[in-house]
Amino acid sequence: MKKALVTGGAGFLGSHLCERLLGEGYEVVAVDNLYTGTRENLTAFAANPGFTFVEADVTELAPGDLTGPFDEVYALACPASPAHYQARPIFTTLTSIQGVLLCLDIARRDGARLLHASTSEIYGDPLVHPQEEHNWGNVNTIGIRSCYDEGKRVAETLVADYIRVYDVDARMVRIFNTYGPKMHPQDGRVISNFVMQALRNEDITIYGDGSQTRSFQYFEDLITAFRKYMAVEKSVIRSFFTAHGLGAPVINTGNPGEYTIRALAEKTLELLPESTSKLVFKPLPSDDPKKRKPDITLAKELLDWEPKVPLAEGLVKTIAYFRDRHINR
Amino acid sequence: MKKALVTGGAGFLGSHLCERLLGEGYEVVAVDNLYTGTRENLTAFAANPGFTFVEADVTELAPGDLTGPFDEVYALACPASPAHYQARPIFTTLTSIQGVLLCLDIARRDGARLLHASTSEIYGDPLVHPQEEHNWGNVNTIGIRSCYDEGKRVAETLVADYIRVYDVDARMVRIFNTYGPKMHPQDGRVISNFVMQALRNEDITIYGDGSQTRSFQYFEDLITAFRKYMAVEKSVIRSFFTAHGLGAPVINTGNPGEYTIRALAEKTLELLPESTSKLVFKPLPSDDPKKRKPDITLAKELLDWEPKVPLAEGLVKTIAYFRDRHINR
Repeated sequence: MKKALVTGGAGFLGSHLCERLLGEGYEVVAVDNLYTGTRENLTAFAANPGFTFVEADVTELAPGDLTGPFDEVYALACPASPAHYQARPIFTTLTSIQGVLLCLDIARRDGARLLHASTSEIYGDPLVHPQEEHNWGNVNTIGIRSCYDEGKRVAETLVADYIRVYDVDARMVRIFNTYGPKMHPQDGRVISNFVMQALRNEDITIYGDGSQTRSFQYFEDLITAFRKYMAVEKSVIRSFFTAHGLGAPVINTGNPGEYTIRALAEKTLELLPESTSKLVFKPLPSDDPKKRKPDITLAKELLDWEPKVPLAEGLVKTIAYFRDRHINR
Repeated sequence: MKKALVTGGAGFLGSHLCERLLGEGYEVVAVDNLYTGTRENLTAFAANPGFTFVEADVTELAPGDLTGPFDEVYALACPASPAHYQARPIFTTLTSIQGVLLCLDIARRDGARLLHASTSEIYGDPLVHPQEEHNWGNVNTIGIRSCYDEGKRVAETLVADYIRVYDVDARMVRIFNTYGPKMHPQDGRVISNFVMQALRNEDITIYGDGSQTRSFQYFEDLITAFRKYMAVEKSVIRSFFTAHGLGAPVINTGNPGEYTIRALAEKTLELLPESTSKLVFKPLPSDDPKKRKPDITLAKELLDWEPKVPLAEGLVKTIAYFRDRHINR
């Protein structure tokens, strides 16, 4: 039986990943400090004998605290929404850095394969569209989003150098907007905001005129990309990224379908015809990226992967989750 | 008597700063792991009763290891030349991060004023010239220079967030190319390379055609900028940078005079007429910035400072130092 470590395992993506791995027959150890993750996210599989939950902060763990050997390590621990990371900026930066170091040191110790969850935020307010992996990004080092953006950028650097120095079998994904059940209802991001507002019959808040676009990836597509990526042999990874002129294995994962924020609001209301919510418009916050859309050519080529879940289908499931967990109880 | 802490105090810039502070009547504690710094750099003032040297690595120290209270803290510890940081990339990133965290925690504990030595490298391969403080930089997260560039970028983020969260009285300088006595002879940078090659009558190596430009600041000008910057009251700092639309106090310090690399080589040989060295041309390494030049408008305005030492004068002193320390002994 293979054994996997998932840091951030009680979070939105981490808990879905744990469930997928358990379904594939893995033994899974999840670590989470429950800052944004919840025990409720684990209920569907908490009783599975292959599952262990460790409530701990990755900034306070040493590799020896987690008994291996692990075959696979997933570095997912980090607050990821502006509402959460701006409340604790220094902690967020250190979680990004020390969380990935913990995983890298365990992967090095155990000869494990590692997947690091990077982010489209490393592109910042991008100068080119869509974003592809050779873009270096346009990020402010001293702004209020920097704690997350720069913490994630230097985490990529550490992964790249662990590969060069210690030959760790690591790979990175730059995750674009992802949504679905188990999203945090107060994470302040647009899909959870719109769905919660529509369910509560509150005004649906659009910042700016709503013409800015976003791309939305359903979580199942992302977890599938994780699993396909982790199945690729190290030698194949190395030659693929070298051939593409990239200094380390990093691919975008996201849904390239673009929607305006206004269209997303209208789609949400269309799926909730009983809602009495109306659209209202407010000024755009500073440092908010005007547009972001992934180029997923590399993921298609390397993994034979592309997103399959249409927005309407994903939204229906997300609405059902929020109604069940946060309204009807 | 005021007390100052200088991390990286046995390095090129750190040791000059210690000497200046001692000359101004400060009690000085220097911390250095001697990775690129040397005890020889301290000889001029090691016997000064106000001076204490702590041989230690900033990544292994806690604030309690350094007895305060300090009035001023200078965060200078980090390998800064590609030859040194590329030999130990992970260590370099962690030194940048943990070094500044140590200083920030001490400044917070003691209510000390802090100066963080950032770098022009945070601009990467810049898209605009000259560089001014609002530029966000163009940096590769996964290349062979990233360990330094991204480590320094996230260090700026940590300083900015310690100011926002804990109201630490910190300020940052983005230091452009600086040269002078006590530069490491093997640091691989252009002035030390050219001077050592000319003194040894070896070929002077120019990468590319030598038309790329650099700006060179003599260390005395930089140390003067440090001292002037540290004399400015916190309230003045806050209102100045807010008025300039910058999220944290950061100024460029460098000499805006531009020289081609070829002109620098010719000037070096002109000052060493007895040298039999010839110019030779080799291919440019990857990721080498094509051009970098500081906009020092903010430093002029805030500090009434600009570089005063002409290149020829600084080069004469640098040549004398290298001849004395590394050739005639």
